[in-house]
Amino acid sequence: MGYAVNMHGGGGRDCPLVYIHAMTDDAESKGPLARVGVLGGSGYTGLEATTLLAKHPGVSLAFTSSRSAQGSPSPAPGLPFTVPDEARAREVDVLFLCLPHGTAAEWVDRILGAGGASPRIVDLTADHRPGSGRENGAVYGLNEWFREEIAQAKLVANPGCYPTGVLASLLPLVRAGLPARDHLTVINAASGVTGAGRTSRTDLLFGEVSENFRAYGTGNRHRHLREMRALLQDGVDLVFQPHLLPVRRGILETMVVPVTPGVGPDDVRAAWREKYEGEPAIRILDEGLPALSDVRETDRCHLGVEELSDTGRPAVMVGAALDNLGKGAAGQALQNLNAMMNWPTERGLRC
Amino acid sequence: MGYAVNMHGGGGRDCPLVYIHAMTDDAESKGPLARVGVLGGSGYTGLEATTLLAKHPGVSLAFTSSRSAQGSPSPAPGLPFTVPDEARAREVDVLFLCLPHGTAAEWVDRILGAGGASPRIVDLTADHRPGSGRENGAVYGLNEWFREEIAQAKLVANPGCYPTGVLASLLPLVRAGLPARDHLTVINAASGVTGAGRTSRTDLLFGEVSENFRAYGTGNRHRHLREMRALLQDGVDLVFQPHLLPVRRGILETMVVPVTPGVGPDDVRAAWREKYEGEPAIRILDEGLPALSDVRETDRCHLGVEELSDTGRPAVMVGAALDNLGKGAAGQALQNLNAMMNWPTERGLRC
Amino acid sequence: MGYAVNMHGGGGRDCPLVYIHAMTDDAESKGPLARVGVLGGSGYTGLEATTLLAKHPGVSLAFTSSRSAQGSPSPAPGLPFTVPDEARAREVDVLFLCLPHGTAAEWVDRILGAGGASPRIVDLTADHRPGSGRENGAVYGLNEWFREEIAQAKLVANPGCYPTGVLASLLPLVRAGLPARDHLTVINAASGVTGAGRTSRTDLLFGEVSENFRAYGTGNRHRHLREMRALLQDGVDLVFQPHLLPVRRGILETMVVPVTPGVGPDDVRAAWREKYEGEPAIRILDEGLPALSDVRETDRCHLGVEELSDTGRPAVMVGAALDNLGKGAAGQALQNLNAMMNWPTERGLRC
Amino acid sequence: MGYAVNMHGGGGRDCPLVYIHAMTDDAESKGPLARVGVLGGSGYTGLEATTLLAKHPGVSLAFTSSRSAQGSPSPAPGLPFTVPDEARAREVDVLFLCLPHGTAAEWVDRILGAGGASPRIVDLTADHRPGSGRENGAVYGLNEWFREEIAQAKLVANPGCYPTGVLASLLPLVRAGLPARDHLTVINAASGVTGAGRTSRTDLLFGEVSENFRAYGTGNRHRHLREMRALLQDGVDLVFQPHLLPVRRGILETMVVPVTPGVGPDDVRAAWREKYEGEPAIRILDEGLPALSDVRETDRCHLGVEELSDTGRPAVMVGAALDNLGKGAAGQALQNLNAMMNWPTERGLRC
Repeated sequence: MGYAVNMHGGGGRDCPLVYIHAMTDDAESKGPLARVGVLGGSGYTGLEATTLLAKHPGVSLAFTSSRSAQGSPSPAPGLPFTVPDEARAREVDVLFLCLPHGTAAEWVDRILGAGGASPRIVDLTADHRPGSGRENGAVYGLNEWFREEIAQAKLVANPGCYPTGVLASLLPLVRAGLPARDHLTVINAASGVTGAGRTSRTDLLFGEVSENFRAYGTGNRHRHLREMRALLQDGVDLVFQPHLLPVRRGILETMVVPVTPGVGPDDVRAAWREKYEGEPAIRILDEGLPALSDVRETDRCHLGVEELSDTGRPAVMVGAALDNLGKGAAGQALQNLNAMMNWPTERGLRC
Repeated sequence: MGYAVNMHGGGGRDCPLVYIHAMTDDAESKGPLARVGVLGGSGYTGLEATTLLAKHPGVSLAFTSSRSAQGSPSPAPGLPFTVPDEARAREVDVLFLCLPHGTAAEWVDRILGAGGASPRIVDLTADHRPGSGRENGAVYGLNEWFREEIAQAKLVANPGCYPTGVLASLLPLVRAGLPARDHLTVINAASGVTGAGRTSRTDLLFGEVSENFRAYGTGNRHRHLREMRALLQDGVDLVFQPHLLPVRRGILETMVVPVTPGVGPDDVRAAWREKYEGEPAIRILDEGLPALSDVRETDRCHLGVEELSDTGRPAVMVGAALDNLGKGAAGQALQNLNAMMNWPTERGLRC
Repeated sequence: MGYAVNMHGGGGRDCPLVYIHAMTDDAESKGPLARVGVLGGSGYTGLEATTLLAKHPGVSLAFTSSRSAQGSPSPAPGLPFTVPDEARAREVDVLFLCLPHGTAAEWVDRILGAGGASPRIVDLTADHRPGSGRENGAVYGLNEWFREEIAQAKLVANPGCYPTGVLASLLPLVRAGLPARDHLTVINAASGVTGAGRTSRTDLLFGEVSENFRAYGTGNRHRHLREMRALLQDGVDLVFQPHLLPVRRGILETMVVPVTPGVGPDDVRAAWREKYEGEPAIRILDEGLPALSDVRETDRCHLGVEELSDTGRPAVMVGAALDNLGKGAAGQALQNLNAMMNWPTERGLRC
Repeated sequence: MGYAVNMHGGGGRDCPLVYIHAMTDDAESKGPLARVGVLGGSGYTGLEATTLLAKHPGVSLAFTSSRSAQGSPSPAPGLPFTVPDEARAREVDVLFLCLPHGTAAEWVDRILGAGGASPRIVDLTADHRPGSGRENGAVYGLNEWFREEIAQAKLVANPGCYPTGVLASLLPLVRAGLPARDHLTVINAASGVTGAGRTSRTDLLFGEVSENFRAYGTGNRHRHLREMRALLQDGVDLVFQPHLLPVRRGILETMVVPVTPGVGPDDVRAAWREKYEGEPAIRILDEGLPALSDVRETDRCHLGVEELSDTGRPAVMVGAALDNLGKGAAGQALQNLNAMMNWPTERGLRC
């Protein structure tokens, strides 16, 4: 299927990147600007996307829309929220969809279905992700893995926040054949509340979340599992348990990965380094596991690994940390925009 | 060794208990009062123990000591903190040790070593716990499992907060032979900051902990593993990974337990119910996993279990929640005091 | 008007109380039980009232109702939430109204309007408070000030959380003639989110409240001002500015009170002590201002005062701290129940 | 004295600024880079300064030093913390002092006292601020008010976080003669914990700060009052009461300002607009009071004003919000660096 990972070519090696700091002088800045519009700009993902696009040196932000917040100021200076408008949506070069899950698919059908010239789309919702059954020829926006396909894509399905950390961690290991498939790979994940969106649910009130911690999506039934399995296929036997953290933003994933005998942390780091060398949005720790505070308000994903002592069979502890609104959503969407424009992947990012 | 669990007698069934609400009229209240003293009363565990003992209808709190807070008011009305004093310590019926790990052992040697009449001791530190190598004939204070031994004990080693939840969950399963020993049982745990004590460590500052989440004691090397393994022995193959939560108090433990084919959540709940029937400090959920908010500021441990769908081998998801200062420390210490005095286990507890 | 404070009789002195700890043996416990019911038990105030009533040694909790949570377990062991039922409501001795503001008045009219035997009512909403224009002959439940009237009352209007702290602080000063009426008395208040109720408002989401702090009810227009002014009358010229704190529960009020020349902190403490001597729910600090953590999860109000240096005119800084769900709501409601039953004011309280 | 504000010339009008977004293309970026060093880079202020300087397009960060964190990575990519070194400190163009209060003065004496060529200094500590008695000819770094003097200064005393918001709010009002001097101006302020520095104090532990709120520096005795009074002189009669907020960063200041009859919110906004027109780091709200979340992780200060209803004498409610680490420290320090280099005031800022 269209999302199978090329286990031979390594995107990272094919496009080596010089680390360019997001705020140093921007060689491309004299080039033409991309006109970008945001549909659904007042949710947490939409606010983050609007904020980053407004600061992106290569972008001219045409509009950011919100039915509920129409007319009120957006994070983009001088650009209040507008009502969603199909005509204006058609005029941009790239359209970001930060709408509620489900409604994004309708917009995609309307914009791309009509034929003729139309903007390219980065869909930040779950509507067209692998395993959704509605892929619609969308390219999966796991940037470090599908950059070349994204560069040509008409529709990009931006990955979920949990899968971004899990796949960044495990795909290189599967490609290197390190996991032992006959044992469970157990992923315990915890996310800040912005991952659940800006909806007025009683269970997301400060009075319910503060001083609390709880599992949800229990029984190995979380929606994101389909997305992970579509990419990992039979490379690992997954158990995935998310939890709700009393923090605003950020995801930490702790994974116990049974490995084939003789495999250790060095092999894991080697597999990561081979794939991610030169990738500014992926940082590999020399030792220890990452902390959420290392990636808060950034567009990076941090990866770390430790050996496990005194276990009956070989296994390693893998940790991934990212900001669910950064690399887990708007940050990766900007990487995908940069790929579509043939710009450096970190342009306008907080790497 | 002295801490092996009797796999045949079930403490819970041997001493059936009628649920008596902690604040209803107290039949025993006309009986003699136990004189209790607290050494190390100004740490988080000491403050909680002092608070609960001051409200316990059967207790006369003789003193609560603190070098650092000497003279300042304690949570016990009209009882300011005093300097630790061996003579006064010898005069009580039961001595609670809430001292820093290490110094408790010195006090135990001084009080019990001298011979002659001496108070009985509940040691809330790690100094004499199973696997410490300094058990010194201490009885392990996992109340629902060793209540009869505790009733006779001179020295009780109060369990650690993490082991309390793990052992409450897994001991009945091991006794019933449910876990598959040839696969890893993965425990992901998260604790509030009071579990780390009231010490001025930079990494425990609000500025470091708030909006953060991180693993610690990585590599399957946390001190509490020795304690768990001493009780579980070869019944499970443990991976234990604790995390620091941005909450003040409470522990949530999520455990993936591989089981023998055909075993499911009902078998787990049955094993728990057989052991814990009538136990007010253990609550078994009919469905779902427990949340930290259900047990905050209580002396209960909540247990829940769910089946895992779409895994290659049979496993269940087990969840335990408790307040690290309640059932995880001072609450269980009160249960042990009650056992020593032949009082109902929930007397003075927040069950 | 009916709520003017008797400036001569001091409730506190009239009924001196021996401090009896809520959990010590309860002399009255052998007496008859009061049957109490709660309407609106699943909001934050209702949950707190249900929790405290279930533990009150003199109370038989007949029911706690909730339309939204009907059938699910309440904090009262073995007592799930029921649908509100007028017939059952009529059968109790005392009815607690924890309903949304507005709907309480309808229940009061139905229960008390019908004539014949009916339960006495403690209304925890704003519907019948002083200044509401719907006092309806309700007695104001500021317990330390109107205890004798409450003992006889058919309907008690339980005070708001903010007014409880402000009036506890300022009424004794006004009675002693300490404030300078020709200058502004400035009250800055901050409350935890449970003060806003358990309603699914977007501005109360964890994502909005955490790491935030903001004023609300600005322009000296907060509803509670009417209630404060009805009691303080022209004794002070009030500015009241509440803020929303990123905490679950608790209120801190910092008040700059211009005073007549020569008046200092000692005079303030003397006025408080004269009024509150022997009152277990009011604690006067010997020095400094109170902290929210001193009163969290208690039914006490702490009062403190400091002099102000280097100001052009005499003024003192007064601080009040209480738990908005404790002394600010359910705790005071229990004091009022105790007054109705001629029980000690602290019976069943966390003092 | 050297810090008296010029009540006639308006800095804002003298140097009108075109709003240039921090991340748009940077005209000056082709110009020479300023070599900057940071002493004390591992405290909260030092970390923020290091982070911003590393991203500043006109800056070459020579070093960031920390005795405690020597050798560990700093927020500047590829620049680990070094030991403080006087020789290296002398080689830079501008030196940022983020040291503990007191030790900064020693460095200033050593660097500037020796004579000969030496770097210019921005001191982020309290050591040379107005009212400290050790001004030493330092220019006060309240950027919008002393920009021209700062451009020429050898030593800049960067303002405290609280005074920055208070002075930004009140200086224009005093200059316009709006406050009534014969009544108290009451300032209630609340700050996140990073304002207290990254020191291992027990009272700053998560366990103490979370779910808490308390006043400190009571009795109108906070160190920052000297600084405010040195600038405001006899223009207002100040009461200043700070509180510790359970948030990581940010300051909110709510001020009741008695005014001369007939003065209202429009007059206040007019005074602000006259002074701050074109200033990117000061934002004036058209209505309402600012919230902490509007300025978190920015270098802006937001100002708002509301009228007060039903008071015996005319007064307005003024609100200021800023990030204590942004406009309250490192952000303003960057504005001062920009002034020294004749760069736009918002260069490298998060405005």
